[in-house]
Amino acid sequence: MYNDLRKQMIENAKKGIKEAYESEEYSLIQAINAMSELVKSSNLANERLSEWDGLYAPSAKVDSNQAIELAMQICSGSYLDKSGIGRKPEAEEAKSLKAFADMARKMHETIDILDAYVKEAAKRLMPNSSYLIGENLSAELLSKAGSLKALATMPASTIQLLGAEKALFKHIKFGTKSPKYGLLFKLPEIATAKKWQEGKIARAYAAKLAIAFRADYFSKNFIAENLKSQLSTSLAKIMASKQPEKHVFKHAQKSMQKKAYIQSSGRRKHK
Amino acid sequence: MYNDLRKQMIENAKKGIKEAYESEEYSLIQAINAMSELVKSSNLANERLSEWDGLYAPSAKVDSNQAIELAMQICSGSYLDKSGIGRKPEAEEAKSLKAFADMARKMHETIDILDAYVKEAAKRLMPNSSYLIGENLSAELLSKAGSLKALATMPASTIQLLGAEKALFKHIKFGTKSPKYGLLFKLPEIATAKKWQEGKIARAYAAKLAIAFRADYFSKNFIAENLKSQLSTSLAKIMASKQPEKHVFKHAQKSMQKKAYIQSSGRRKHK
Repeated sequence: MYNDLRKQMIENAKKGIKEAYESEEYSLIQAINAMSELVKSSNLANERLSEWDGLYAPSAKVDSNQAIELAMQICSGSYLDKSGIGRKPEAEEAKSLKAFADMARKMHETIDILDAYVKEAAKRLMPNSSYLIGENLSAELLSKAGSLKALATMPASTIQLLGAEKALFKHIKFGTKSPKYGLLFKLPEIATAKKWQEGKIARAYAAKLAIAFRADYFSKNFIAENLKSQLSTSLAKIMASKQPEKHVFKHAQKSMQKKAYIQSSGRRKHK
Repeated sequence: MYNDLRKQMIENAKKGIKEAYESEEYSLIQAINAMSELVKSSNLANERLSEWDGLYAPSAKVDSNQAIELAMQICSGSYLDKSGIGRKPEAEEAKSLKAFADMARKMHETIDILDAYVKEAAKRLMPNSSYLIGENLSAELLSKAGSLKALATMPASTIQLLGAEKALFKHIKFGTKSPKYGLLFKLPEIATAKKWQEGKIARAYAAKLAIAFRADYFSKNFIAENLKSQLSTSLAKIMASKQPEKHVFKHAQKSMQKKAYIQSSGRRKHK
């Protein structure tokens, strides 16, 4: 009987895992993370490549995007160094440079493939949020939250600060300025906004995103057009508003923060 | 006449640059740097891949080296998930996973090609130091120093600490422990040594390396066999020596360091 019970429990656990894995959101998370990491590696490789190219083509003015093409020309012998001060690569050198440039190109191609999948899957799994803030940013928020369910049950204030965990804990512990946004800093509206508008814009987005994520996960209805027009109204209001005058009690606040910092860091004790 | 002078000066500058670029050491530096960076990117990609694989093959026990092979099996459909709890990849998913695994494999191949070039070039350009500490470590020291000439004119103490610049400045500024070695920590002899022997071993190596680099750059004679046998004698002596007793004035020293730190960081002022 105990054996039967044990079997049953293992079966249940397996079923639970199977259900958890069945959702495509987890492979979307892997893909967006793979892509973000690969973009960094690719940038690093491009920079290295353009420095390496410089030995053979010191007079060529190339940014790192053209470095692959230039390396290919150098290795095939079709690059003409008009200045005459560059080095001619030996056979083994050229082989290494070409292998490295080939790999840098492969990185670009792989990024494109991952990007296409991320866009397609995010549009399918997160249609509302993708419509509001784009597929890639939606997928990044999903990756931070861990699952669609977690995203759909988050309050707007948490969504606003997803990706700003470090700054948030620093704020709580040491009384530094509270962060206004996390991953949402990637929104072009925030990047181009005035300092005092950033937080307001992030809050407006987060409020609509909270609704969008709920629709993505629970009802699966497409309500994003409505949300977007509401968002546009809010954004227009923020843009039209005047910069608030600085609060008089700012200094008092600061000294309170400092006090909190000193207390929490335990460097001075109460009498 | 001024024009002639100007032309002459430009010609001279060009000649100087050409001479500087003519030496292969600079492409060796690019290759070893490209390789070190790529090894990091490759490790990151392998880790991501093994996590991604886990969605489809949760019961497979693979380390990150086998992750590429497993991904290929998953994508081709030849992997059999005996546990039955893994996810089946959709076509687009499999395409992304396969592209990422292909790229991870390309990274490995590229590392191998770069490694072969580094080994061959270092053996040719730095025969003595390569014989003493291996080609890759020699090339890394070359990259840190910037040129063979710089390496060949460095005192042994500087060579000993190449790559430990951060720790060294921390020592000078804040009175932390002085570093005993930089890049030389990669020597297997230091990795397996007892704590109190590490500095002695690094110093013994650096002393012989200083001679080896001079021979590599100036005389181009091969004297490394001699150096290695001398080094072996020194190392044997270090291994046979007893651990020194702890100094009685250690505490006094420590409190002095602390004082120096407090003074230099400006947190307390002299009266």
